[in-house]
Amino acid sequence: MQVRDVLVSAPGKAILHGEHAVVHGKVALAVSLNLRTYLCLKATTGGNLCVNLPNIDTFLSWDLSELKHVIPPVSGRRDELKLLDPDLVRRLREFVGVTNGNLNTSQMATLSFLYLYLSVFGSGELPSLTVSVWSELPTGAGLGSSAAYSVCLAAALLCASGAISSPLNDWDHTARWCQEELELINSWAFQGEMIIHGNPSGVDNAVGTWGGMLRFLAGKIIPLSRVPLLRILLTNTKVPRSTKVLVSRVKDKINKFPSIMAPVLDSVDAISCTCEKVLSEMTSEPITGEHYNALEELFDINQHHLNVMGVGHPALDTLCRVTLAKGLHSKLTGAGGGGCGITLLRPETSSAVVQATVQDLKDCGFDCWETSIGGPGVQQHAPVSVKEEILEVLNRD
Amino acid sequence: MQVRDVLVSAPGKAILHGEHAVVHGKVALAVSLNLRTYLCLKATTGGNLCVNLPNIDTFLSWDLSELKHVIPPVSGRRDELKLLDPDLVRRLREFVGVTNGNLNTSQMATLSFLYLYLSVFGSGELPSLTVSVWSELPTGAGLGSSAAYSVCLAAALLCASGAISSPLNDWDHTARWCQEELELINSWAFQGEMIIHGNPSGVDNAVGTWGGMLRFLAGKIIPLSRVPLLRILLTNTKVPRSTKVLVSRVKDKINKFPSIMAPVLDSVDAISCTCEKVLSEMTSEPITGEHYNALEELFDINQHHLNVMGVGHPALDTLCRVTLAKGLHSKLTGAGGGGCGITLLRPETSSAVVQATVQDLKDCGFDCWETSIGGPGVQQHAPVSVKEEILEVLNRD
Repeated sequence: MQVRDVLVSAPGKAILHGEHAVVHGKVALAVSLNLRTYLCLKATTGGNLCVNLPNIDTFLSWDLSELKHVIPPVSGRRDELKLLDPDLVRRLREFVGVTNGNLNTSQMATLSFLYLYLSVFGSGELPSLTVSVWSELPTGAGLGSSAAYSVCLAAALLCASGAISSPLNDWDHTARWCQEELELINSWAFQGEMIIHGNPSGVDNAVGTWGGMLRFLAGKIIPLSRVPLLRILLTNTKVPRSTKVLVSRVKDKINKFPSIMAPVLDSVDAISCTCEKVLSEMTSEPITGEHYNALEELFDINQHHLNVMGVGHPALDTLCRVTLAKGLHSKLTGAGGGGCGITLLRPETSSAVVQATVQDLKDCGFDCWETSIGGPGVQQHAPVSVKEEILEVLNRD
Repeated sequence: MQVRDVLVSAPGKAILHGEHAVVHGKVALAVSLNLRTYLCLKATTGGNLCVNLPNIDTFLSWDLSELKHVIPPVSGRRDELKLLDPDLVRRLREFVGVTNGNLNTSQMATLSFLYLYLSVFGSGELPSLTVSVWSELPTGAGLGSSAAYSVCLAAALLCASGAISSPLNDWDHTARWCQEELELINSWAFQGEMIIHGNPSGVDNAVGTWGGMLRFLAGKIIPLSRVPLLRILLTNTKVPRSTKVLVSRVKDKINKFPSIMAPVLDSVDAISCTCEKVLSEMTSEPITGEHYNALEELFDINQHHLNVMGVGHPALDTLCRVTLAKGLHSKLTGAGGGGCGITLLRPETSSAVVQATVQDLKDCGFDCWETSIGGPGVQQHAPVSVKEEILEVLNRD
């Protein structure tokens, strides 16, 4: 079976407001982070399935004749994509030799790749192909790197198989799929996320698929129609933390001081709603400094609330102080207790200020990227629309 | 007329929780601050009234025969102490030559002294006496220094005149008045506060009179029966600020983000109530580390909330950071925007840690005192119970 070559990318995600509060039934706003994962799928003729994941030093190749035997005897295209095919998962774990214990990043990436490949192509002849992935996202930093990977995999495999269209025209630099096809990509990406995370919320793959911003409340995910593109700095303090520990720390604090903490969660909920309102105004009326002032104030207030919840960290205090010294406002994003923070850049923030701030943050030992939030979700690329250095990595053999 | 010699002192005040929130109908807790103002009243024979206020470089003397003419013709003992006698105020302002414009600290202190002196003694023969005052409190720092002064004046003048008893027995070091006499002292001190502040809340003179802690809600002041004595550091960042500006800044923020700020005020209210509960437990059951942990957490949460209200300041952030580096928790007290902060000391905090912390704070350019909160209100002293250096200042001529 001959397949289409495909070049796709999907964004990471950041929580703009509502991290932790969302666990307690409040609104959270997730946004696409324009640090992207790129995937190049190429048809080959050697009868092999190859995967190159240079970010995590993973370069694997399987003989298709061996891989064929992993497919369960009564497998076929499944309509219900909310659950994994347990038989296929078991056979794959045996195939790659990870039947028990926790998987490392490389094993999880391999397993979800093979699962999606066999699910998409398993009912027919397995095509010979090479998949190469390069991501601008750090892994394990709460920035949705696994979801961006799963979304890219789902889009590329579905597109290569012909299950969804190839929306890119000759004259396009990039193109996106229609809503129905995006729904399909998202469902398959969720399968990949289930392999990697066990019980994912579905937020990360939804952001990777739709991009922009989405509202997350009580398990319901609603993509928001229009949001402005906002320039930010994304800083990784590189302080390791456990989301599970942080979530239970917040729960303990709520149990210890219910009358004090309940209003704090209400206030965070109101911050998310107010932020949504401000961002929506920014797409429907002329953007003013007042809009940015409000966004900055919401950052500051929420950062204080997250400290009240006990998920701050001295490294995050440093981030806030260093950026405030340049007139910029920051908050943690995600689980906190270290991890990442975002800093809002205003349209008038000069590149000199941005560069100086990035340098100051790097001097603190942090990683720091100038990027944006609110950009597009998964898209197909003409090679010309991808940075030279990324193409080079993807085309390296 | 011959009067009794009296030596008295009254404490300053700090807001433990609820500053700013109290303006919006929430509970605040005010506590006595064991930085005290001492007043020594001595009968003399020269036919003069002398006042020595070395803290503010004020040393004045009046001829009683001249002062007599200031008393309004139809003056007498007044029962209603919630309002000033406008005729006496006007005559006094003329007498000291401050008929218009804002008064400086020295003029306000002089005016309230003369007002209380003439109100207490004006219906009879004016006694010849010298009043000397020394305060451990900085002025204009929101620590109730004017109220401590007014309370001392009221207690000493009423006691000297015989309007209230002299509770000190020969064998006592210190002694306090009964509830009824304290009510009278408080009412007269409120008159002094009205001269100085125009429209005082009455909290500062109540703390100076009753000491301990009191709950302040919607203009009602309720002294709390029993509170533990807590060791603290009191730090004056010396950053000047305007309470009026800060109060209106909070109001603006509430108007701008009502749905976000209303829960924050509710949370502060719950902090005050929780703190009151913890302190009450500390007087009725064995004090444990958990009590102190809770008090520290309440400090931290409230400090974040005060930052959310916009009344923080980099100097206060520095205070919090420097003390936290020693394992100690701080919050601003009073209006914020600079001004003063309190740091809780635990029973097990060693004097080495305290000394090192005080030094670090002084190195930041701050003034810092090791003191306590929750101590007694106005009291009469035997000289032996007052530090040598304070007696020396009070007895200097």
